Amino acid sequence: MSEQHRKYGILGTGALGGFYGAKLQKAGFDVHFLLKSDYEHVSQHGLIVESKDGDFTLPQVNAYNDVAKMPKCDVVVVALKTTQNHLLPQLLPPVVKDGGVVLLLQNGLGVEEEIAQILHKVHVIGGLCFLCSNKVGSGHIRHLDYGHITLGEYIPKYSSAGITERIQQIAEDFQSAGIGMELAEDLLLARWKKLVWNIPYNGLSVILNASTDELMTDNHTRTLVEQIMYEVKAGAMSMGRMIPDSFIQTMLDYTIKMTPYRPSMKIDYDERRPLEVEAILGNPLVKAQAAGVNLPQISFLYHQLKFIDARNQK
Amino acid sequence: MSEQHRKYGILGTGALGGFYGAKLQKAGFDVHFLLKSDYEHVSQHGLIVESKDGDFTLPQVNAYNDVAKMPKCDVVVVALKTTQNHLLPQLLPPVVKDGGVVLLLQNGLGVEEEIAQILHKVHVIGGLCFLCSNKVGSGHIRHLDYGHITLGEYIPKYSSAGITERIQQIAEDFQSAGIGMELAEDLLLARWKKLVWNIPYNGLSVILNASTDELMTDNHTRTLVEQIMYEVKAGAMSMGRMIPDSFIQTMLDYTIKMTPYRPSMKIDYDERRPLEVEAILGNPLVKAQAAGVNLPQISFLYHQLKFIDARNQK
Repeated sequence: MSEQHRKYGILGTGALGGFYGAKLQKAGFDVHFLLKSDYEHVSQHGLIVESKDGDFTLPQVNAYNDVAKMPKCDVVVVALKTTQNHLLPQLLPPVVKDGGVVLLLQNGLGVEEEIAQILHKVHVIGGLCFLCSNKVGSGHIRHLDYGHITLGEYIPKYSSAGITERIQQIAEDFQSAGIGMELAEDLLLARWKKLVWNIPYNGLSVILNASTDELMTDNHTRTLVEQIMYEVKAGAMSMGRMIPDSFIQTMLDYTIKMTPYRPSMKIDYDERRPLEVEAILGNPLVKAQAAGVNLPQISFLYHQLKFIDARNQK
Repeated sequence: MSEQHRKYGILGTGALGGFYGAKLQKAGFDVHFLLKSDYEHVSQHGLIVESKDGDFTLPQVNAYNDVAKMPKCDVVVVALKTTQNHLLPQLLPPVVKDGGVVLLLQNGLGVEEEIAQILHKVHVIGGLCFLCSNKVGSGHIRHLDYGHITLGEYIPKYSSAGITERIQQIAEDFQSAGIGMELAEDLLLARWKKLVWNIPYNGLSVILNASTDELMTDNHTRTLVEQIMYEVKAGAMSMGRMIPDSFIQTMLDYTIKMTPYRPSMKIDYDERRPLEVEAILGNPLVKAQAAGVNLPQISFLYHQLKFIDARNQK
């Protein structure tokens, strides 16, 4: 597949999928968007992106409300929340070419493995997005900050795949659309590293109704954040991946210097959407447990979040 | 000291001290009440007790707003919240007879030891109250349920003191006032056993804004309650005290059958009073830690509560 011909499908045209998909189309790629509630509006009016890197509109996009109507794509970007992943066995098969790529732009752990079990003739690539963006209206996305993606290819048992030609090609497409890209030799290590930030800040911000700066200002919550980060390190170690202490220190320092931030799980909670508890905390716990390693404080946070999430959905 | 002559001082005439003190005075004991905000009102109008065991009023009581004006007492009942315990080095010495008793009707762990370090010529007795009562106005107490007390004598290093004559005498006084009494051979074991209930329900009800029945209905929080109870058992074990698993099971079953209940720490939180985090969670953690035992989930809850408490006091 050459850059000119690569066809992109976007499953989930929200703050994340809408943003990256629009950037790709603007750069000249052939992009096909799956939508649900915004389908009618986007069919008629296209997409609007307000971005710190420059606003733009796409008055016309290929919009669909049914995967059966979509063309087979070379790269299908899964940009749904992981809480929607039970839909993937239905959504993916009609829309991915044989030999094509499923690119999972999702949080957490373990989803590539699930995809590889559903689809046997595709390549699965994981992408970790560092993006701050919101959907502010139908087909209307506001990109606030960051935006770069780390890509890593999945191979069975999460063995380290190295920098494959496939992730290089996709990274080139995204880069040509103005998106910063990094490549990871080891997708599993990259995912555990992202959990170092995601587990403590997502979890504690919901349970304690606190923003990142509040969590870092108070000595007690700062202690909790750090203790959880070390449990994530132990979780990674249980799967043979080494996260250096210096990385933890960098994450702490970085968050202290960051603008006060509402993590995605806190936004989901405030909007009364289901929380990504299983992908972000549950799956890492299961993996570590399977290797005989207990993570008692992450487990505690997990159960607290499950309670809070269930009550929030009532 | 004989029953006829035993003089009681009550430090803290609220929902707990006011209730037990009023019961003792009604039974004929010479009782002296220390008050703060309710001093003027109670001096003039006495105490009103509404109780499921029968309402009564005491139109006249010995009320004080200064320990210097109180007589020396045979038994000084400390009925303050533990968050006020920094006041005890000033409050206690003027009001306890040499050879008298300080009776600590407080939650948590470790306070008897602190008292014994302040006062050398007194006996220290710990009392664990199972009382559901509220102060509904100045000098006006509403007793809702329960009310019995478990007494145990403190001797250095929390060695088991057995059933001493001293706790028997005090238990007789309280019993003659209609208060159910139990005697504990081992105060430390009794305190750890009470923590089996107090740590999970007090802590989780505040952090998750939930009542006991909500915590027991949801499988995730029920799991947390049980895991915390087993950590309390490990804490007790670190100090050489054995809590049987059957006791934990009894506490779980008992709470499921109980009327939905708002634990005292939750009431304090809702009333924006300081929380007894140090006595109920902090001191047990310190004791276990000193014996080389980590209690990671109680530690997690402790830090969450410290954060929540500080924000609640702002």
